[in-house]
Amino acid sequence: MSDNPFAVVAKPGDKLGELSTPRPIIDEDGLAANIARVQSYMDSHGIAFRPHIKTHKIPALAAEQVAAGAKGINCQKISEAEVFAAAGFDDILITFNILGPQKLERLAALNERIGGLKVVADSAVTVDGLSDWFSARKPLVVLVECDTGGGRCGVQTPEEAVSLAGRIDKAPGLSFGGLLNYPKPGAAKEVQSFLSSALALLENEGIACPIVSNGGTPSLFEAHLVPAATEHRAGTYIYNDRSMVRAGHCSFDECAMHVLATVVSRPTPDRAVIDAGSKALTSDLLGFSDFGSVVGYPDAVITGLSEEHGVIDLSKCSGDRPAIGDKIRIVPNHTCVVSNLFDTMVFHRDGVVTRVEDVAARGLVW
Amino acid sequence: MSDNPFAVVAKPGDKLGELSTPRPIIDEDGLAANIARVQSYMDSHGIAFRPHIKTHKIPALAAEQVAAGAKGINCQKISEAEVFAAAGFDDILITFNILGPQKLERLAALNERIGGLKVVADSAVTVDGLSDWFSARKPLVVLVECDTGGGRCGVQTPEEAVSLAGRIDKAPGLSFGGLLNYPKPGAAKEVQSFLSSALALLENEGIACPIVSNGGTPSLFEAHLVPAATEHRAGTYIYNDRSMVRAGHCSFDECAMHVLATVVSRPTPDRAVIDAGSKALTSDLLGFSDFGSVVGYPDAVITGLSEEHGVIDLSKCSGDRPAIGDKIRIVPNHTCVVSNLFDTMVFHRDGVVTRVEDVAARGLVW
Repeated sequence: MSDNPFAVVAKPGDKLGELSTPRPIIDEDGLAANIARVQSYMDSHGIAFRPHIKTHKIPALAAEQVAAGAKGINCQKISEAEVFAAAGFDDILITFNILGPQKLERLAALNERIGGLKVVADSAVTVDGLSDWFSARKPLVVLVECDTGGGRCGVQTPEEAVSLAGRIDKAPGLSFGGLLNYPKPGAAKEVQSFLSSALALLENEGIACPIVSNGGTPSLFEAHLVPAATEHRAGTYIYNDRSMVRAGHCSFDECAMHVLATVVSRPTPDRAVIDAGSKALTSDLLGFSDFGSVVGYPDAVITGLSEEHGVIDLSKCSGDRPAIGDKIRIVPNHTCVVSNLFDTMVFHRDGVVTRVEDVAARGLVW
Repeated sequence: MSDNPFAVVAKPGDKLGELSTPRPIIDEDGLAANIARVQSYMDSHGIAFRPHIKTHKIPALAAEQVAAGAKGINCQKISEAEVFAAAGFDDILITFNILGPQKLERLAALNERIGGLKVVADSAVTVDGLSDWFSARKPLVVLVECDTGGGRCGVQTPEEAVSLAGRIDKAPGLSFGGLLNYPKPGAAKEVQSFLSSALALLENEGIACPIVSNGGTPSLFEAHLVPAATEHRAGTYIYNDRSMVRAGHCSFDECAMHVLATVVSRPTPDRAVIDAGSKALTSDLLGFSDFGSVVGYPDAVITGLSEEHGVIDLSKCSGDRPAIGDKIRIVPNHTCVVSNLFDTMVFHRDGVVTRVEDVAARGLVW
């Protein structure tokens, strides 16, 4: 955290060129535009929007998302929810199967502290475990997670979804909150088909379904093609990254996060080495074969990372090549995992630091 | 750090089965054996040993390495060196080209605080930058980094090495400390050839070369095949990981770090989902096509990671398959990057927690 005596401090008013590297930086105007653009789309289609805070893990940013119109937040683990509840957030959905007494005890305590806690389940084991810890006095809201093609967690069929919804509905300490899917980008038709079938079956059973929660940034602007959904969840859109450019969600100009790095070696004419490695950019490829886009050097290829070095192949660069000591910027493949590596995040406007926020929910064990 | 009010605490005496997951754990006996085995090899060949602390970032572990016979430590960035200097370490080699006033100012301050600070350089730009900040009163020791086939930083030829050594030797604030290479596993002959040529040329020039520093864990037990080297650096050997098993350096039984995870979903007969994703295991593949080895399930394949979920393909498992709620252990592909994700590290013996150490040097910007 920021009270670490060895932290290298950045402060409002610092120029970006004066910052020690490697360090992720967030452009304030890009950030605000990303928040506004997505909220405006959701508003225009009457879809409730629930930002996923895993991307930034910073309560002040979630407050900006809610101020813009978001209806609540999405966390991925209890410790994140604890940090955000302490910061005043009340409508928190944790999209995870929560199991085991260590976690359930904390989940129960959190449910006493805030009014709008919700979780998901995709199995009778998870539902029964939750049921043991909550009571009719203040039931826990549980949504059924559906696998609509994403291939991660989730019940496999609408029939299974309804069966599990019934189990939740009958558990005295639980309240059925609705359906949720782990999204598969570009599969609006598949998602709509699964969810609408499940809704019809729920209606037959007389089980009310308050929320139908769809999600994901890559296909975010197709959220209106899933009319069965009442809300949409997305995280990455707030910063954007190279994978979102490839998905067609945004342009490089709309990537608010850059990783600032310094060229520390030019061992050969075609090779540059920077001080950003896998402990700054992460090794997330997300289908790419290289580790980020170098701003201003479109033909430079980050071919390899060791922990504190990145190796850049310049052989295809026809114009200028960066020199030793030059600071460069990289659009990372995946912004959410970069956030998770740093205790603080630096924000700037026109090259001047505006604020430094603690990445408050990083590094916490569940 | 451990004073974070939201940290989920583990403490001596806790049983591993009671810990919240995901969490890396270190077996005390495995740790001690790894330290002893490598130090014993180095001692038997008369090679000075310099452990790289990037793997663990924990001063107490470096103290164990030094107590076993290591002659000093290796850091990869100034903030690491600052943390370890404050913990009492005096012989610290930072294997990085250090550039820019933000870093050089701190390097100069560190050189006042400890007696045995050393850095590397591979270019005249780096040497001249260092030279500006140090004086004859307390010169900075600088080694020339050589690219002996590793393809990262380093001068490309023995002739370049000697030319840069001469430049360091003539700079009033610097003292030539020797040669260093970024290792290429399995290339002892190549490394020896480069270093011995450079040594002969240095002798011709009348430049003394106190240290010749070779490195790396994968080929660590071939260190004696590079007689030109006076010391060896290695980090990963203290914990070991799946990539070191593949390299032939160790067996799975000698991997002291496991990542403890819980099976949270079994959506299909062939799919298990665990609560360890890229924010626990990292996406480092290091040439593998999957994300770690599942202990006790040799045919299980961790095919994909999202941030807090890992997807395991069980289709090739002939025997038992893990059930929802089961705790499993994973040998990660790369232990050094896993360390870097967690604020604290849990140690255990026979299933009982022995101590919890702050990963003191993680998350620090340079």
